[in-house]
Amino acid sequence: MSRAILTLNAGSSSIKFGLYREGDDPVEEARGQVDGIGPDAALVLDTGEGETRAAVAAPDHQAALAAIIAALKPLLAGDEIAGIGHRVVHGGPYLDGPRHLDDDLIAYLKTLSPLAPLHQPHNLAGISAARAAFPGAPQIACFDTAFHRGHPWVNDTFALPRRFHDQGVRRYGFHGLSYDFITSKLKQDFSSISQGNVIISHLGNGSSLCATKNGVSVDSTMGFSALDGMPMGTRSGQIDPGVLIYLVDAGYDAAALTKLLYKESGLKGLSGISHDMRSLLASADPRAEQAVAYFTSRLAREIGALAASLGGLDALVFTGGIGEHAAPIRARALEKLGFLGLSVDAKANAANATRIESGPVPILVLPTDEERVIARATAALL
Amino acid sequence: MSRAILTLNAGSSSIKFGLYREGDDPVEEARGQVDGIGPDAALVLDTGEGETRAAVAAPDHQAALAAIIAALKPLLAGDEIAGIGHRVVHGGPYLDGPRHLDDDLIAYLKTLSPLAPLHQPHNLAGISAARAAFPGAPQIACFDTAFHRGHPWVNDTFALPRRFHDQGVRRYGFHGLSYDFITSKLKQDFSSISQGNVIISHLGNGSSLCATKNGVSVDSTMGFSALDGMPMGTRSGQIDPGVLIYLVDAGYDAAALTKLLYKESGLKGLSGISHDMRSLLASADPRAEQAVAYFTSRLAREIGALAASLGGLDALVFTGGIGEHAAPIRARALEKLGFLGLSVDAKANAANATRIESGPVPILVLPTDEERVIARATAALL
Repeated sequence: MSRAILTLNAGSSSIKFGLYREGDDPVEEARGQVDGIGPDAALVLDTGEGETRAAVAAPDHQAALAAIIAALKPLLAGDEIAGIGHRVVHGGPYLDGPRHLDDDLIAYLKTLSPLAPLHQPHNLAGISAARAAFPGAPQIACFDTAFHRGHPWVNDTFALPRRFHDQGVRRYGFHGLSYDFITSKLKQDFSSISQGNVIISHLGNGSSLCATKNGVSVDSTMGFSALDGMPMGTRSGQIDPGVLIYLVDAGYDAAALTKLLYKESGLKGLSGISHDMRSLLASADPRAEQAVAYFTSRLAREIGALAASLGGLDALVFTGGIGEHAAPIRARALEKLGFLGLSVDAKANAANATRIESGPVPILVLPTDEERVIARATAALL
Repeated sequence: MSRAILTLNAGSSSIKFGLYREGDDPVEEARGQVDGIGPDAALVLDTGEGETRAAVAAPDHQAALAAIIAALKPLLAGDEIAGIGHRVVHGGPYLDGPRHLDDDLIAYLKTLSPLAPLHQPHNLAGISAARAAFPGAPQIACFDTAFHRGHPWVNDTFALPRRFHDQGVRRYGFHGLSYDFITSKLKQDFSSISQGNVIISHLGNGSSLCATKNGVSVDSTMGFSALDGMPMGTRSGQIDPGVLIYLVDAGYDAAALTKLLYKESGLKGLSGISHDMRSLLASADPRAEQAVAYFTSRLAREIGALAASLGGLDALVFTGGIGEHAAPIRARALEKLGFLGLSVDAKANAANATRIESGPVPILVLPTDEERVIARATAALL
């Protein structure tokens, strides 16, 4: 094979990338990111032999992409970029899988920016930069919402006047690329588990849970935005709508609410110390302990809610940075869930083993790989 | 006994009342309400021999109370009003039981009005009218929040910067008088059940669930306001905070959000037909069916979440207008909860029997009586 696939995941101040050799299951050649887009940009590159990090001139997304292309050039050795796959957070109510990007689709995706103001415009900036850099290459969009588009109506709506649902105020659900990876992995390696009622806990800087039946999403803790459900690094998670009315009455506008609930809340707000679970677990400060207790308590509650939504639980999967590595978080969340058949083998859990249950219901720890899902989808559409 | 206790529960356009003979467990003599305070007021009175309804002149709360006093006068036959018990929705973070009302306490309760703008000012108007009418009688306040004041910290806070909790932005929980009645009833008549992990579903025009351990509240689905958790007649229940940010960005102010989420959402908004569960259950319109499906699906989810919060479930209680009378709602919510040991005996359920389980976990249907809780508390403090 001499054709390569590039995956791009553009955020507000970073572009993550992956380079793959084309194939049914594309083979990873490199991954990395440009972070700190602006005055302090740096490029991190990992070709499987350890990570390198170097300052780059990347005042904007276009320059960041140019830096990525320059860094990948020696690896390509003249090979063609056969296609570029993009992570796009929001595909709206209709797009239930990856799509070729053309002017019409891009125009449509722009109309969705108000639904995901902190992510969608950056995703689109990445697409724009990639189209300029590779005018001849097919560009594919993979949506974080697509995996959830088959939810039953009750899990897709809020109890608002019906016109809001028609206008797009729905429970979309996110982290779909991660859930897609995990359900494929289950199908491949844990086929009998994959056919049951499985809750997947994607716990990272952003966190959500997904309830799946035979590999299909039926419910999720994230809804309209990336704010709902689990508390996160700096996001509030579930919060009484009355609190927002109270804050609006006290003078908060949309920008102030966005700043408060996306950037200053969650673990960071509760602890007053850090948004990072590793720092909190390492801290002796009682506020860190309270933030951890809140996180694990809400996690247990969401698992209970999704088990009810599924009508029973056959397996639980942990993934994402916290889910894969934070053994104390897994153990504490499961402390009170023995009634669901969930109990933890302490030794396997401490070792971050793949199987960590000591009770009847399997509990798995599986690394996720959203870039690979983008690469696969891109290869499939080429 | 020749001393009487009056209970008052003042809302925006109504005052509910109860007349009791004083005693350890006061005996009800009459109950009723003035509704439609304003141009079309009417007084409903029930002395145990059927309800009567008559138009009264009650342009405001003071006139409504005068109408109530006039209606009760023949029943009092000259007996003294020994004390008046008031329902007050919000007691703030510290008040964990009923209190004698004096100027200082009333001034404090006024400061809580921003936390419950649709209820607290009306409760205070009722108190003001009662103090004017009975200047010599002790006045007692019973708070809907008091029953929940012992929640563990994780169930009392949101994942916001800590100053918000200090400032009173907490998960208070409501319907405390109803939960107080039910836990007393369990202690009296179902003593072994009462010692376990019991979820009480108060489902009426307002709905919430309470998780109790040995009769003590440890968690609830309502939080800061009366909006959170279950969808209700016209209230949204749980909704992604991102939806509110989106609406604020689209021009909604606090008044418009309040109107939308308190008055136009819930069953009414979803069905476009009615806020009343009886009408929806009787309707053949598919939108009515969708609203019912949403309600029962969220109810199942909340039961699952609270079971996780408790670490397992020993009994479930239904109360409130819907909880006591809507057998199809109970049955549908429990359809998928067999994994919790919950299953319904169809015949007992259809008959609204006190015990309706056919599985290992008891399911009870118990009428609530918030007025009686106020009367008892008032008698105890006199």
